[in-house]
Amino acid sequence: MKYTIAIIPGDGIGPEVTTQAKKALDAVAEVYDHIFLYKEAQMGACAIDKTGDPLPQETIEICKNADAILCGAIGELKYDNDPTLKIRPEQGLLRLRQELELFCNVRPVKAYPKLLKNSPLKKEIISGTDIVIYRELTSGIYFGKKEISEDGLKASDVCSYTVDEISRITHLAFKAAQDRKKKVTLIDKANVLATSRLWRKTVAKIGEQYPDVALDFMFIDNAAMQIVLNPKRFDVILTENLFGDVISDVACVIGGSIGILASSSVGEKNALFEPIHGSYPQAAGKDIANPLASILSAALMLEHLGLHDEADAIQRAVEKSLDLGITTQDLKGKNQYAASTAKVGDFIADYI
Amino acid sequence: MKYTIAIIPGDGIGPEVTTQAKKALDAVAEVYDHIFLYKEAQMGACAIDKTGDPLPQETIEICKNADAILCGAIGELKYDNDPTLKIRPEQGLLRLRQELELFCNVRPVKAYPKLLKNSPLKKEIISGTDIVIYRELTSGIYFGKKEISEDGLKASDVCSYTVDEISRITHLAFKAAQDRKKKVTLIDKANVLATSRLWRKTVAKIGEQYPDVALDFMFIDNAAMQIVLNPKRFDVILTENLFGDVISDVACVIGGSIGILASSSVGEKNALFEPIHGSYPQAAGKDIANPLASILSAALMLEHLGLHDEADAIQRAVEKSLDLGITTQDLKGKNQYAASTAKVGDFIADYI
Ligand SMILES: CC(C)[C@H](C(=O)O)[C@@H](O)C(=O)O
Ligand SMILES: CC(C)[C@H](C(=O)O)[C@@H](O)C(=O)O
Repeated sequence: MKYTIAIIPGDGIGPEVTTQAKKALDAVAEVYDHIFLYKEAQMGACAIDKTGDPLPQETIEICKNADAILCGAIGELKYDNDPTLKIRPEQGLLRLRQELELFCNVRPVKAYPKLLKNSPLKKEIISGTDIVIYRELTSGIYFGKKEISEDGLKASDVCSYTVDEISRITHLAFKAAQDRKKKVTLIDKANVLATSRLWRKTVAKIGEQYPDVALDFMFIDNAAMQIVLNPKRFDVILTENLFGDVISDVACVIGGSIGILASSSVGEKNALFEPIHGSYPQAAGKDIANPLASILSAALMLEHLGLHDEADAIQRAVEKSLDLGITTQDLKGKNQYAASTAKVGDFIADYI
Repeated sequence: MKYTIAIIPGDGIGPEVTTQAKKALDAVAEVYDHIFLYKEAQMGACAIDKTGDPLPQETIEICKNADAILCGAIGELKYDNDPTLKIRPEQGLLRLRQELELFCNVRPVKAYPKLLKNSPLKKEIISGTDIVIYRELTSGIYFGKKEISEDGLKASDVCSYTVDEISRITHLAFKAAQDRKKKVTLIDKANVLATSRLWRKTVAKIGEQYPDVALDFMFIDNAAMQIVLNPKRFDVILTENLFGDVISDVACVIGGSIGILASSSVGEKNALFEPIHGSYPQAAGKDIANPLASILSAALMLEHLGLHDEADAIQRAVEKSLDLGITTQDLKGKNQYAASTAKVGDFIADYI
């Protein structure tokens, strides 16, 4: 079969890790006799530098017409520390999510046996953890009105949600739970926020349609603690945009490294796959970045395209690389030998 | 000396732990020859049950006229799971913070050597950690306009901040850093929120007045992860209301138990002291709740009143109880003997 894949390398370590994911995809294409047609597109700081726009129209077109989108990472230090800039790299990613209505961000968090020792958490706390986070991605405070008063002395952001926005991702979360441990935990701040109370009400109602799935509620402050204290109590986590951003980063520590966590962002028509990690500009070009999150994002993408055996092949190759310790610095002890980004990518492509 | 202390026992385990804090205060009064005049006031679910109002006017008056306020905990399960209720216990606490303008919430997080083993985090990660969180407490999304559309299909919350609101707590955070490790980390989401960009700009400018203090910035998602990965990199954390709520709960795991963390909420005229933990209704009346957070809140209160030796006496007694293992269930292994709430309180009062 032939598939068109939009590739957005992005900034920082984005291009290097995406290159490794392409190696894995090429290997899959050879073994399983597919054709992956890559269309490269610009987004983020590199797009600003070239076109003045973090999300050029051409990129939107390429993404809309692709069967799936593989994204590296977005962001550059010079933009982070200057809050007065009007144009910023992240706007590209945020606008793309919105334009393609990629409302459902799925972030799986698993404790890999080989990586238990890499976590700051004790082994007995995390071993056996298997969580998937469903984060709403196209609404909430990310996309509400932002204002700064003319004198610059006051700023505001609006968080808003509709029942429709809550419902569509809620159904997906409950369906996912049906194939898992049959438990959904809604994370909100219903003791303070009106939007959270709308979430709680809507999700409780939808939950009645899934009598085989248990539903409970947790405030975000407590949840951010519980995910570290007792991660095994969670199965499917359902939450709004900002809380999902935070809780998924805390949950990263369970996997042993943020360098191995992939995510999918799915809408009615399009789907984007990307690492959870950022662009980590400090490591760019040094061939030390961990390519596994990007490679596993490619596996999620194949899964989404219905290519299950192919996705498994990547997954198995990744596990083999972990077993053999062919991994980058972030997964190593101080004086252990670490493989380069390209080396890890080569091993995984070869193994496939 | 004579001091008037407003006591708000609150809900759930609030009354029991507050009783232990009073025992400690009584012991201090005897040894150091002070008079603490307690004025009990109602707030939260118990106040709703009695008066229909989570914050009766009388409570506000008692608090305004006291030298300091000691609060137990607020919240009751029946309110959490019904998002349609218009009157909720937490509104009492939130309105009190606002009425008294308790804008600066200070939450110290320390790794007690004796409690290292209680943390889900590895010893080498947390040992030596000493952080203090400055959380803005009277603005942000907590106090912005909340709306629900008439048809109930849409809700919104507004987060807003002014330069003045940011400035007053920022100065306090920098001053605190001067007496500590001379480092302030501002936690925000400046890549997405207008209010965060106002924070970043304002704090950067104020930072110039404190050239001896290093300032850095971190996005909330990354910060929530870093506080678990590498807590020792932090000294003073400065942040807005909601992010402070979340980050301080994550940070709890460093201390080994949320049951030992105290906080102060300070305004120009008044100051309130309370545990970080909630009302934990499941444990209410069972004499198993950890009273240390409440007792340490009393110590923070004495500190605030300028009674340093007295605060030290409580602190020492608490450490002794930890050393001797006279602690409640939450700080124990599965089959270890645990002391009751009252027993721990008695020991600490006796030791003082
Ligand atoms: C880069 C940033 C805008 C983004 C977000 O906050 O959504 C990132 O943190 C993420 O989680 O994908
Ligand atoms: C009870 C609740 C409203 C409160 C808050 O969110 O501020 C609590 O979590 C806290 O941190 O003091």
